[in-house]
Amino acid sequence: MITTDILIIGAGPTGLFAVFEAGLLKLKCHIVDGLPQPGGQLTELYPKKPIFDIPGYPSVLAGDLVDNLMEQIKQFQPGFTLNEKAETIQKLEDGTFIVTTNKGTEHHAKAIAIAGGLGSFEPRKPLIEDIEFYEDKGVEYFVKDPELFRDKKIVIAGGGDSALDWSIFLADVASHVTLIHRRNEFRGALDSVEKVQELKKAGKIQLITPAEVTGIHGAEKVEALDVEIDGAHQRIETDYFIPLFGLTPKLGAIANWGLEIEKNAIKVNNALDYQTNVEGIYAIGDINTYPGKLKLILCGFHEATLMCQSVYNKLNPGKKYVLKYTTVSGVDGFDGTRKEAEKQVVKAIE
Amino acid sequence: MITTDILIIGAGPTGLFAVFEAGLLKLKCHIVDGLPQPGGQLTELYPKKPIFDIPGYPSVLAGDLVDNLMEQIKQFQPGFTLNEKAETIQKLEDGTFIVTTNKGTEHHAKAIAIAGGLGSFEPRKPLIEDIEFYEDKGVEYFVKDPELFRDKKIVIAGGGDSALDWSIFLADVASHVTLIHRRNEFRGALDSVEKVQELKKAGKIQLITPAEVTGIHGAEKVEALDVEIDGAHQRIETDYFIPLFGLTPKLGAIANWGLEIEKNAIKVNNALDYQTNVEGIYAIGDINTYPGKLKLILCGFHEATLMCQSVYNKLNPGKKYVLKYTTVSGVDGFDGTRKEAEKQVVKAIE
Ligand SMILES: Cc1cc2nc3c(=O)[nH]c(=O)nc-3n(C[C@H](O)[C@H](O)[C@H](O)COP(=O)(O)OP(=O)(O)OC[C@H]3O[C@@H](n4cnc5c(N)ncnc54)[C@H](O)[C@@H]3O)c2cc1C
Ligand SMILES: Cc1cc2nc3c(=O)[nH]c(=O)nc-3n(C[C@H](O)[C@H](O)[C@H](O)COP(=O)(O)OP(=O)(O)OC[C@H]3O[C@@H](n4cnc5c(N)ncnc54)[C@H](O)[C@@H]3O)c2cc1C
Repeated sequence: MITTDILIIGAGPTGLFAVFEAGLLKLKCHIVDGLPQPGGQLTELYPKKPIFDIPGYPSVLAGDLVDNLMEQIKQFQPGFTLNEKAETIQKLEDGTFIVTTNKGTEHHAKAIAIAGGLGSFEPRKPLIEDIEFYEDKGVEYFVKDPELFRDKKIVIAGGGDSALDWSIFLADVASHVTLIHRRNEFRGALDSVEKVQELKKAGKIQLITPAEVTGIHGAEKVEALDVEIDGAHQRIETDYFIPLFGLTPKLGAIANWGLEIEKNAIKVNNALDYQTNVEGIYAIGDINTYPGKLKLILCGFHEATLMCQSVYNKLNPGKKYVLKYTTVSGVDGFDGTRKEAEKQVVKAIE
Repeated sequence: MITTDILIIGAGPTGLFAVFEAGLLKLKCHIVDGLPQPGGQLTELYPKKPIFDIPGYPSVLAGDLVDNLMEQIKQFQPGFTLNEKAETIQKLEDGTFIVTTNKGTEHHAKAIAIAGGLGSFEPRKPLIEDIEFYEDKGVEYFVKDPELFRDKKIVIAGGGDSALDWSIFLADVASHVTLIHRRNEFRGALDSVEKVQELKKAGKIQLITPAEVTGIHGAEKVEALDVEIDGAHQRIETDYFIPLFGLTPKLGAIANWGLEIEKNAIKVNNALDYQTNVEGIYAIGDINTYPGKLKLILCGFHEATLMCQSVYNKLNPGKKYVLKYTTVSGVDGFDGTRKEAEKQVVKAIE
């Protein structure tokens, strides 16, 4: 059982920054995310695109913002349960919670911050008979660990950024990469398209277009695919099939946690601390709703901060909290490091 | 008469960022500040110190954050009335406002955002008889424009960062710089103290310690000062006397604008849009108060954003606002410039 002060569900920018604000208050955090990496929408959907409305950044690439947040929270040593979805929650008699993931990992925490964004990302699955049978047996909707494909034959399907970028990346890892798309045209960043073109010429990526995977074969696991090309059928041997047709966020199991839901979002008390109708459960960032709510990254930062203050006050009843400026008080990490402004000196001048 | 959509009172980080969010909604802003430069507390009190809790910045110097904000809002061409304090407000019958400064400058706006921080900075004045008579006649509590002192004799009094840093800076501008402090010890950044030491040795700054200015002489303007050194008295000729004994923020005239005030701050409706009890007047950043309020820069950013949305909705009744991501829609400046993410291409790979 993993134990922590605040269990954060969702490693998007909101959840990540919450670790920092909690840390300033000496509260430990652990984060659960269904994706293989932190960053939420920024990493999964637009890592190489610039954001222009992060205060103090005239422009910042989404991926860089996530890297900076990871660097900022490093001192507070957050724990991560990645690749797992928070599925059930149980409130114990003492007011603490146990959250269990779809893989059975249990987390015990004093407070819960749901920073689940638009929900957990569910892959759009191709309509192929029996595909569910082959999931985790050769069919992968995410590239969680590229090493899985080391020296294997893989087939990637899709025509967008993910399909292009993973084909490029895995060309150096897999023994054989085939990219299948139902159109001749790909949609993506110009350099990604050009790079795939190059790799194709160099024989490192095999392209089949316009084509569609229509069937999967294999007794225990994926062994071959049926591909339809211009009405004709072809069978391709492969170890893995990676359909990358985009993701749709789904509120999922959280919808059944007894929280007030409105338009697929969790209602919170924005007049105070972004708490839900269940004491001790907060919702911050894109996943919450209140009058005037804007689904912006900068709003999640503020909500995370006020949430942490509220948790601190609950866990330390009667203790009067005095706001400390990081500039003045410095930042003491749980890892023993300290950041601080250069000290002033008091010194005579002769 | 200056006219604008939103008149922002206070050019601290909150007021500056409001220009950006307003700009995204095609609303023009003008900012009034009593200080000679934008940046609020960050520029006036700790420009060279690092801040550690700006989301996405593991560390950023306060002065750099202000520079970045200025760069970020540049596209939206905010107007500035600096060195002037907003003093009176008048609500016209059509719901618009006229704000007049202590120097009589009038501003006509559709909405008012008070981002006045802890209030306007009032200098701590030395207890010297008749000092008020000499204000703007040789006595300066701020260095508004260093060129004023070009080739003049100046006396700076004080023992902190401002006194040290302005002595250093003006040593190259004024014909003669005298620094007077009532102790031998100065309190400041080590390199500032050392630099003053050097300049003293080089004969570029004259130091008188422990000493105090006790009187001012001159018929029309400052001509000489009385200085008490160890009980003895001395007269020093000078063109300017610059006492830098720190600043205290005062809510000032805003306290009489008919707004609900609590503990020196303006009460706002944080459950909606940070509006005050007067429709059309908002208060954002350090200057407002509500349950759970934290006087942090990142909170001001969020408040500014929701305020702008509210103004937009008021000025465009019936028009349904659809949130646009800067990453997706780009940013169109009032200056004709456009920021945008690199376009995706749709391209066949042969
Ligand atoms: C193309 C695009 C451009 C954008 N541009 C901008 C912009 O310019 N400016 C701006 O401010 N915003 C922009 N946004 C919106 C911005 O990305 C979101 O506001 C932000 O990501 C919200 O952060 P978050 O941390 O609340 O949630 P997310 O980033 O959505 O992260 C939520 C995380 O929670 C996880 N999760 C959800 N449910 C569970 C569960 N049950 N168990 C485990 N994990 C779970 C998800 O896997 C996800 O990683 C853009 C969005 C897109 C798609
Ligand atoms: C030493 C120090 C360290 C700090 N460290 C941190 C930190 O690490 N993190 C953090 O988040 N915060 C920190 N803060 C607090 C932070 O500086 C404030 O939260 C921030 O400056 C508030 O921004 P603002 O724009 O609301 O107001 P301010 O920065 O105070 O700006 C308000 C402006 O309004 C002007 N003004 C007021 N009244 C009038 C009027 N009537 N007419 C014209 N102009 C007017 C003032 O001149 C001023 O320029 C620190 C503060 C100090 C002093």
